[in-house]
Amino acid sequence: MPSRPLPIAPTPCLALQDSDRLRVYIDPHAIGHNLERLRRHVGRPQPRFWATAKADAYGHGLLPALAGLHSADGISVQSLTEAHTCRDAGWHGPILVHAGLLSAAETALLSLSDLHLVISDTEQIEWLARSNPAQAPAIWLRYIGDTRFGGFDDSRYAQAYERLQTLLRQGRVAGIAHFNHYARAEEIGGIADAHARFSAAIKGLPGIVSNCNSAALLLHPEHAAATHWVRPGIALYGASPLPHATGSDLGLKPAMTLVARLLSTLRLAAGTALGYGGAFVAPTSMRVGLVACGYADGYPRSAQTGTPVMVGDRRTRVLGRPSMDTVAIDLTDLDHVYPGMPVVMWGDGLAVELVARSANTIAADLFTGLTARVPVSVAH
Amino acid sequence: MPSRPLPIAPTPCLALQDSDRLRVYIDPHAIGHNLERLRRHVGRPQPRFWATAKADAYGHGLLPALAGLHSADGISVQSLTEAHTCRDAGWHGPILVHAGLLSAAETALLSLSDLHLVISDTEQIEWLARSNPAQAPAIWLRYIGDTRFGGFDDSRYAQAYERLQTLLRQGRVAGIAHFNHYARAEEIGGIADAHARFSAAIKGLPGIVSNCNSAALLLHPEHAAATHWVRPGIALYGASPLPHATGSDLGLKPAMTLVARLLSTLRLAAGTALGYGGAFVAPTSMRVGLVACGYADGYPRSAQTGTPVMVGDRRTRVLGRPSMDTVAIDLTDLDHVYPGMPVVMWGDGLAVELVARSANTIAADLFTGLTARVPVSVAH
Repeated sequence: MPSRPLPIAPTPCLALQDSDRLRVYIDPHAIGHNLERLRRHVGRPQPRFWATAKADAYGHGLLPALAGLHSADGISVQSLTEAHTCRDAGWHGPILVHAGLLSAAETALLSLSDLHLVISDTEQIEWLARSNPAQAPAIWLRYIGDTRFGGFDDSRYAQAYERLQTLLRQGRVAGIAHFNHYARAEEIGGIADAHARFSAAIKGLPGIVSNCNSAALLLHPEHAAATHWVRPGIALYGASPLPHATGSDLGLKPAMTLVARLLSTLRLAAGTALGYGGAFVAPTSMRVGLVACGYADGYPRSAQTGTPVMVGDRRTRVLGRPSMDTVAIDLTDLDHVYPGMPVVMWGDGLAVELVARSANTIAADLFTGLTARVPVSVAH
Repeated sequence: MPSRPLPIAPTPCLALQDSDRLRVYIDPHAIGHNLERLRRHVGRPQPRFWATAKADAYGHGLLPALAGLHSADGISVQSLTEAHTCRDAGWHGPILVHAGLLSAAETALLSLSDLHLVISDTEQIEWLARSNPAQAPAIWLRYIGDTRFGGFDDSRYAQAYERLQTLLRQGRVAGIAHFNHYARAEEIGGIADAHARFSAAIKGLPGIVSNCNSAALLLHPEHAAATHWVRPGIALYGASPLPHATGSDLGLKPAMTLVARLLSTLRLAAGTALGYGGAFVAPTSMRVGLVACGYADGYPRSAQTGTPVMVGDRRTRVLGRPSMDTVAIDLTDLDHVYPGMPVVMWGDGLAVELVARSANTIAADLFTGLTARVPVSVAH
């Protein structure tokens, strides 16, 4: 028994249900589109694509992501536990595990075919040396690179490679490849030095190579095309890793749209404060909307006054600071606004990069930060 | 087949399992302790306590929280859906729903006994007026207060009250009470004006009163004692709502401890950069640890160099910026450190307020921000 016309979402599929405070919409087709877009960007010779689906596919859900990624050459995840989840979900192709082994006991999980482990530490090699895996994993030896987030430095890389060759002869591992990750791939000229050091470290050591994330393959496609596997993550989900572009600028489609209910509206007199500590003070008389989306949903508490939101086809802005359950927005001069209508917080029609920038963070932080409180709908 | 002594956690219960990157420990006993601590603080006459358990009990999980809150007088949640979850979980007492009704259709969910709705908008009253609830809910009429996050202003409060009296006579609602929320309760003198305005608005309108959150009841206990119901939230979970105190300073115990695995260690030469964009540059030769805890777990990406962490019984600090899956910490001068050992990110032994402050946010943002990727253990 609705008391007014049913809420009209920006697109018919982005509606709220009766008991929704908010809802996140996931579009696997967009993920598939983005994978193909990246393939075309890299061109020939075409490397193989590890589709990075760690962190529950950057918050999009592993299952919806796999539905969009059927044409990927492999899936990369963070942990062996996630690799098993991936296989259980019906992914039959190669799986790359970024964290390799977390403990000696994890060698008991080496029971999947076509499993690839990133190995970053001597101790992980020794765990492998003492294992008798049901299926020998392929190894991606991690060079320390310029992030220095784990991996072997120049003085230890060749030694680790040699040790792994022993395990290869013993049948404990199925192959040895080279892995690097760039710290500055989004900067013009940001990979030259890092790539030179990596090339020197692996010189004379046979093996295929993977070193390009989304930023590297977008900004340096000819470099990516000369490697064997690339590892896009954020771009698959429609967001740009490059600081001065949005996903849309790059031909990518948003795979996640966060929609929240407009709860109520009120009039603020000039000089009136809003929110905890009076975070915002109205400079003139204003109309304000209260939206059912807060930091406990994963909307960033760091979103400042001015962070964009979409009400119908009109862009407006956050006022003050998001609270646990709600955020205030500016409805001054907006017509056809009524409680119950959906407000797009990011996604279709509102580039997530703009929200991230205003909240002093990045799209991946927003995507992965949504909490279990947010109900999910997946497009078919 | 561990290759070295099993990891020793700060307390025996805070260990990691073989496949854990990290783990969050929840202690319902601490929540119970905190409730009793707040009761003693308020003293006599003792108001009744709504234990605020919205946002999945501030990220602690509704079920573990209910286990600790058996002596609460009532539980408050955000939505009617959560109220049903609460009842289904075995909570038989009063339940307060902060968002009241989200839509006309939600009146169909008014089937619980001892249900209390916060009503913030005229439209919600009209939904009630057209309902025939299986159980008439008690109403808490929300004054707009100084947050202005919804509620009736001075010109509309009495009118809304009168309309509800009609519904009371019709048996559509079971009672009418007064609800307010303070924007500046953590400031000395921060509630006087707001309380005066609320008192004026409800003058002559019979009904019990609730207006104190954790900050208000801690800083103004005599005020809280003179009301009928108080609504602590954050303090129940062991964190302080007051800017210059930690929960421990207030006699509260942490109910959540986040523990993450030390993955590896490395030596950084002086002048070497670490992380994306070279977020940290080592001023001298340093020993660095890589910890399996990133922003996709809910650890704040805004945590700056210097954010505290505990390694064994030693406090050290974050270096650079957390990535999606890992964070680097300073291990220079720390002995007895080895890969696999647990690192406390906040909680037992490390006040969450210190981490929040360093990340430019508040404890509630950290508590509610943990994602589904983090496995949970609950103390018995």
